Amino acid sequence: MSDTISVLGGTGALGRALALRLARAGHPVVVGSRDVTRAEATAEELRDILRAVGVEARVDGAANVEAAAAGDVVLLATPWDETGDSIAALADACAGRLVVSCINPLGFDKQGPHGLQVADGSAAEQAARLLPASTVTAAFHHLSAPSLANLDKDLSGEDVLVCGDDAAARARVIALAEAVTGRPGVDVGALRQARVLEPFTAVLIAVNKKYKTRAGVLLTHVVP
Amino acid sequence: MSDTISVLGGTGALGRALALRLARAGHPVVVGSRDVTRAEATAEELRDILRAVGVEARVDGAANVEAAAAGDVVLLATPWDETGDSIAALADACAGRLVVSCINPLGFDKQGPHGLQVADGSAAEQAARLLPASTVTAAFHHLSAPSLANLDKDLSGEDVLVCGDDAAARARVIALAEAVTGRPGVDVGALRQARVLEPFTAVLIAVNKKYKTRAGVLLTHVVP
Repeated sequence: MSDTISVLGGTGALGRALALRLARAGHPVVVGSRDVTRAEATAEELRDILRAVGVEARVDGAANVEAAAAGDVVLLATPWDETGDSIAALADACAGRLVVSCINPLGFDKQGPHGLQVADGSAAEQAARLLPASTVTAAFHHLSAPSLANLDKDLSGEDVLVCGDDAAARARVIALAEAVTGRPGVDVGALRQARVLEPFTAVLIAVNKKYKTRAGVLLTHVVP
Repeated sequence: MSDTISVLGGTGALGRALALRLARAGHPVVVGSRDVTRAEATAEELRDILRAVGVEARVDGAANVEAAAAGDVVLLATPWDETGDSIAALADACAGRLVVSCINPLGFDKQGPHGLQVADGSAAEQAARLLPASTVTAAFHHLSAPSLANLDKDLSGEDVLVCGDDAAARARVIALAEAVTGRPGVDVGALRQARVLEPFTAVLIAVNKKYKTRAGVLLTHVVP
């Protein structure tokens, strides 16, 4: 049986697109949102999109806490929350689960996009502190949501960089990355590498603006 | 006339290899070191290597301050200096020059390589503060020194990410990157992006160890 994947913040651009790709790959998916009505509407949209390409996918919608409890793996595609309250509220529901933080704490000002200062070092480390009964990893920071949402787009030429302090958890996320892009994720080591992965998204956004593109990351000379 | 490039820390692995590639591309190069004898010895080695491949290169050696003063462009390939004393000592020699910080402030512990906390945000921003009469940019953090040193190695499939607060300066460094790798650098915006570029090297080093390779970075869907 494929792992059930809960995508919290699954009505946002990145979460929705990850949910779509994971469901296409055969994973049962639960779209989580603060608003259960929006979650259910998004789930229905995703089922319709996949049905149109011949895939009968199992995609449900739920409020974030119920979505988290329903998953084997919980993707945090929620907006950055400096207080951490919205993450702490998930602690019980996420207990015993593999959590993947996709959160990018970014700011924008006259000089362009930039990583925000995070007291814990990174959003992923904040999640690890607030979800002590979960195994927390981080990944999927650098994929373009519009490219993911376009199922015709081949993303197997881009890397998903995966970090976490538990090697078995990293291996599971590396396989999930392959379900999303067709290319296994790259193991970049300890969870604190999220301090670099998260703000690197600001580099990509600056490049997207300058070169009018949707840049991704590829590590050269690595066979994942 | 090609710009003269001074490579401070030019006897280290990265500096030496950048000097070699820049000299091959036709730039007069001055290798700088704290120890003028080592600088001159390295310059002679580089001339010999290039002569063996049919290139009569102009490579000289000098103490760092004299090397800086001799260049149109000054590459800082020196070790990270938290005190900044070694950078501040170059302020007069670097006045009016384009400075490119290649400095990676990295630490290593049980969890692997990681970016160090830097009071100014990044080594590049420290250099900008300490070299007020220079235009400071940052680049060349992610190229593998052994790959650069191997002149047979085609590096045109890797990106050099270039940041700085002056657009004309970034454009000059983008062209220098092309002299080094055969591929123009990618403009990633403001100097503070160095806060991400520098510790991203720790990600590459972790990947090199895990996958037994010499990884580089390519931004996909960008035509530099």
